[in-house]
Amino acid sequence: MSKVKVAVVGFGVIGQRLADGVALQEDMELVGVVDAAPTISVRALKERGMPYDLYAAFPDAKVKLEEAGIPVTGSMEDILQKVDIALDATGAGIGAKNKELYKKYGVKAVFQGGEKNDVADVFFHGYANYEAGVDADFLKLTSCNTTGLIRAIDCLDRQVGIEKVAITIIRRVADPGDYHRGLTNALKVDKAPNHQAVDLMTIMPHIDATGLLVHTPVTHGHFISVMATPKEDMTCEEVIAAFKAHPRVTVVKIDDGFLGNASIFRYGRDLCNPRGDHYPIFVWEDMVVKSGKDIMFGIHIPQESITIPETIDAVRACMGMQKERLEGVGMTNKYLGMVK
Amino acid sequence: MSKVKVAVVGFGVIGQRLADGVALQEDMELVGVVDAAPTISVRALKERGMPYDLYAAFPDAKVKLEEAGIPVTGSMEDILQKVDIALDATGAGIGAKNKELYKKYGVKAVFQGGEKNDVADVFFHGYANYEAGVDADFLKLTSCNTTGLIRAIDCLDRQVGIEKVAITIIRRVADPGDYHRGLTNALKVDKAPNHQAVDLMTIMPHIDATGLLVHTPVTHGHFISVMATPKEDMTCEEVIAAFKAHPRVTVVKIDDGFLGNASIFRYGRDLCNPRGDHYPIFVWEDMVVKSGKDIMFGIHIPQESITIPETIDAVRACMGMQKERLEGVGMTNKYLGMVK
Amino acid sequence: MSKVKVAVVGFGVIGQRLADGVALQEDMELVGVVDAAPTISVRALKERGMPYDLYAAFPDAKVKLEEAGIPVTGSMEDILQKVDIALDATGAGIGAKNKELYKKYGVKAVFQGGEKNDVADVFFHGYANYEAGVDADFLKLTSCNTTGLIRAIDCLDRQVGIEKVAITIIRRVADPGDYHRGLTNALKVDKAPNHQAVDLMTIMPHIDATGLLVHTPVTHGHFISVMATPKEDMTCEEVIAAFKAHPRVTVVKIDDGFLGNASIFRYGRDLCNPRGDHYPIFVWEDMVVKSGKDIMFGIHIPQESITIPETIDAVRACMGMQKERLEGVGMTNKYLGMVK
Amino acid sequence: MSKVKVAVVGFGVIGQRLADGVALQEDMELVGVVDAAPTISVRALKERGMPYDLYAAFPDAKVKLEEAGIPVTGSMEDILQKVDIALDATGAGIGAKNKELYKKYGVKAVFQGGEKNDVADVFFHGYANYEAGVDADFLKLTSCNTTGLIRAIDCLDRQVGIEKVAITIIRRVADPGDYHRGLTNALKVDKAPNHQAVDLMTIMPHIDATGLLVHTPVTHGHFISVMATPKEDMTCEEVIAAFKAHPRVTVVKIDDGFLGNASIFRYGRDLCNPRGDHYPIFVWEDMVVKSGKDIMFGIHIPQESITIPETIDAVRACMGMQKERLEGVGMTNKYLGMVK
Repeated sequence: MSKVKVAVVGFGVIGQRLADGVALQEDMELVGVVDAAPTISVRALKERGMPYDLYAAFPDAKVKLEEAGIPVTGSMEDILQKVDIALDATGAGIGAKNKELYKKYGVKAVFQGGEKNDVADVFFHGYANYEAGVDADFLKLTSCNTTGLIRAIDCLDRQVGIEKVAITIIRRVADPGDYHRGLTNALKVDKAPNHQAVDLMTIMPHIDATGLLVHTPVTHGHFISVMATPKEDMTCEEVIAAFKAHPRVTVVKIDDGFLGNASIFRYGRDLCNPRGDHYPIFVWEDMVVKSGKDIMFGIHIPQESITIPETIDAVRACMGMQKERLEGVGMTNKYLGMVK
Repeated sequence: MSKVKVAVVGFGVIGQRLADGVALQEDMELVGVVDAAPTISVRALKERGMPYDLYAAFPDAKVKLEEAGIPVTGSMEDILQKVDIALDATGAGIGAKNKELYKKYGVKAVFQGGEKNDVADVFFHGYANYEAGVDADFLKLTSCNTTGLIRAIDCLDRQVGIEKVAITIIRRVADPGDYHRGLTNALKVDKAPNHQAVDLMTIMPHIDATGLLVHTPVTHGHFISVMATPKEDMTCEEVIAAFKAHPRVTVVKIDDGFLGNASIFRYGRDLCNPRGDHYPIFVWEDMVVKSGKDIMFGIHIPQESITIPETIDAVRACMGMQKERLEGVGMTNKYLGMVK
Repeated sequence: MSKVKVAVVGFGVIGQRLADGVALQEDMELVGVVDAAPTISVRALKERGMPYDLYAAFPDAKVKLEEAGIPVTGSMEDILQKVDIALDATGAGIGAKNKELYKKYGVKAVFQGGEKNDVADVFFHGYANYEAGVDADFLKLTSCNTTGLIRAIDCLDRQVGIEKVAITIIRRVADPGDYHRGLTNALKVDKAPNHQAVDLMTIMPHIDATGLLVHTPVTHGHFISVMATPKEDMTCEEVIAAFKAHPRVTVVKIDDGFLGNASIFRYGRDLCNPRGDHYPIFVWEDMVVKSGKDIMFGIHIPQESITIPETIDAVRACMGMQKERLEGVGMTNKYLGMVK
Repeated sequence: MSKVKVAVVGFGVIGQRLADGVALQEDMELVGVVDAAPTISVRALKERGMPYDLYAAFPDAKVKLEEAGIPVTGSMEDILQKVDIALDATGAGIGAKNKELYKKYGVKAVFQGGEKNDVADVFFHGYANYEAGVDADFLKLTSCNTTGLIRAIDCLDRQVGIEKVAITIIRRVADPGDYHRGLTNALKVDKAPNHQAVDLMTIMPHIDATGLLVHTPVTHGHFISVMATPKEDMTCEEVIAAFKAHPRVTVVKIDDGFLGNASIFRYGRDLCNPRGDHYPIFVWEDMVVKSGKDIMFGIHIPQESITIPETIDAVRACMGMQKERLEGVGMTNKYLGMVK
């Protein structure tokens, strides 16, 4: 079987990591990446010797890129003629415009969580609703928090059934290197319920979900405090065991030095992971407690890289590479080294 | 009736505010304050013209204070001979040592939340267990988070009964001006359950409580996400109405400009409150949601000043000034201007 | 002599403090303040019982304010018919538009540093170029950093003459309560030279000035590292003595507990200053060093309140209340309690 | 010629990076690393498959490491019998104790900047005083700020001679992942002159240096504002050209997206550098200005990795691998890929 040909459109925080993730999939071929300006990420690509071919998002972009000394292989329309699917990681709203081009060239697309839901036929999560994405043309992935949250909820749901979820999201407000947003000595609250709870219900309609969200002035990962009401009783030990068995969840302990988001960020760098990234979510073994029958626990979401596995799952689903959920996510896990 | 004579021991973040709060009570007399070093707070007291007499915690302290040009009225043993009760706001562990002196001079005492529970006969909260403090000798107040949390839970509990509480505390890690502690771009997690949930159960033993705690790099107020299971169903509107009626709770809206802890801090300064402080907790009207029967909402805790009202309640209780709960807290509220 | 009648236009961070400062001047009358929306500052004004009359910036503003329950005394055009001078503390660019109204009603105006220089006839600093402002119609004040910096430079310049200044500004990126700007774990650099150095040369054209600026994620005060080349040699002790003698400079020591900007912010609250504000700049006695003949020292700038004295100086100058520099700034100092 | 055998003692922030740097030197052999506890860095080493052999700092450490499942090759005394030189990157004060062991086993050592100067025979910087380290037994490296600063000053000094330096250090207060130190919404000042200026004079005694230091709540790199007085006049363009030619300096522009320390940190990750690290210092082309004859510019210091090249230079010097400065630093540069 020939490899599925992939373009990554938008070479920012997510786009770079999508490109790296696709490049690891032995049954996919990363044809190139698309961007619009000589950002520091694009400059770094050049400095690295252009491991990925770069296509210009539009004619003016080509001029600016070349003025900055960045080699440009062609235009966005050029690359769309060479690929089966585009992974669109552009800023919110641009994906909807790009969709017209994808249609024009008969290319499927997976959009990231920043786009509006109606850009896609299916709102997708690899573990929770893989089958809904099979053979679809346009998929939208859940956002970073929702992606990580659903991994955890789906894990428990498939064991005992989950009825109800209430979350408190402690959101990192900016990525490392962001200068266009930030908070200084401020928590910022959002109206409740937060969109992540609403999104969870779209993907998992059998669960009642709500929650609060507080933005905090940190850059290295969201934290979600989850309260889940199971259909059948589950001990803390069973919860921990379920997470330990999940390929996309890592269980850590405070006593082992994992004191918070910054420890996990450091751990990724100390592991010499590319860009210091993590694909799994992290759950603290010593933060799982019961409130009556309800289960309460805390999740760390590495926001820059968390959606990469599920986005690759989306490629497998919509390209029909694997028609069955566990087969699909299993192949992604295998190539990303997420095997336990 | 003669006024109750009060000493405030420890003139730091809490001690200064206790002194200000006591000075407002027309049935109490602030005899003076005790401190051990020419801190900037003590220097500011001098700069203000010594509105409160200062006593030195020990002989060496007197020397250092006078070297810095701070007038010293006498020793700690001197002031203890003039007062009925000491409000101990020293650092954790020092209160337990001071207790020997309080006993020696037959002075009652109220300790703050940093001390161990066994320093006191009663673990106290003005609204939740006022009667337990009546005529007691040594009381310990709940900590800042627990004090604010119990206000809210007690408010609902007295309306419909609360069975179960699960909290997520987003803790400010330092006060403005603190240099001995701090976090930089880091969330820090604590083992669950947090002590505030355990403390709540000590004060309100009929409620099952648990929770997670995450320290965040901000200075202006804790945020608690509360999930409360009521015995009888309660709508969001009823929850909001209950809070609006409570003298020690202020209800705000995001749409009115209360975007988070920093807005509330600014609001206190714009109100020209002394030190910019607030005595109430704040609840956001647009963050109250239901999760099944459970009620979920968010509280802001102004950590520097929150325990002042309940500490003054403790004076009223243990000095027998008012034997009945609502009478006691009502007098405190009246003199602090917390009347709705 | 009848009092000079003053309107404060824009009741934000600066406007509120201008109103408070004008209210303290016994030879001025604060007729009222103008704002456009029920911000938390305006809500706090109402909560305080409307110590200042509020005028609506435009008709729609009146509607919104009244809907929020805020009493409105009249329109901006109404107040402009009652005053001699407007202190414009609106956002950048709005002042230039307001100027047309000031002209229409024959009202003088002082603009804050955010406006462009050409909005005014004179770019003004009370201590450095008071005489230039005498009887002028439209003045623009130096920005917060420049105002504080010039106080220090002017102080030395009048003693020994200053030839050359090179500054490094460590800028607080947002005020407490700001949600529209912020940095998270990031320093941000500006192109050199920074505008404050350029502005200093406009006010003090006999000095050569340049400098770098780095934005830092804090809210409580800018820090400026100053390198000044004097015409005559000056010892560190002489520099400190000069600052100690200046009514608008406070000299502090690290050993006395002034560890940085947060200590100074706390000190203002512990002093029970309204809003916790400071009018002086702060210089650290233990941070004055020599580099050859050059003098190096560090200044703390309390950005929210620093321009209040010099803005009041501007009123005195342009209204001709005092024609001579030391007489003018002296009256301001007297009413603001800045007398040594 | 046989390879020089190296041990890295202390596998923390610096130690890990020293190990990586030594491993790249084709004329050195990294025999192993020493640590005392199953930190997250040591856990990550195991997770990576033990690319470096681990030796236990003391018997208890071996027990704890093995309990945590970390393979231990031997004791610190074991490895000291196998190596020519130890790179000591332990916490401050431990190096002085370790020195006794190094002496016992006849092993040379290079200490990091946290140790006291008297631990070593020579206070060393690869570019500035390489020759002083040749054949010495115990060297101490300059600290991170001083190392980067001296690179820049030495670069200009060798062109035109530098007489005098005045610096303002905007210090990152903690490394990513640090929980034992931090600042929250606070700048912290140090007494002047700072130790970096004093250290510079120890290495470069012909230069007069002084400066201020302000700690800021960020983790990704120090910023130094440098004011240098050259013996001969030098234009900004010449300064920039000198930096562009230096193997250990990278020149960047704000307009190219390098907005501050966080951009540079992101750039390292986008380059897919191991751990996202940088070996060069960064100078902003658009922040070089003149103040009279003096040159003013801003440097970014990547504090985690900056001392790696100069520490490797120290190995070359004291082991006599290269006796001449440019030959020594040139070999380091070659193996670290720092060639222009």
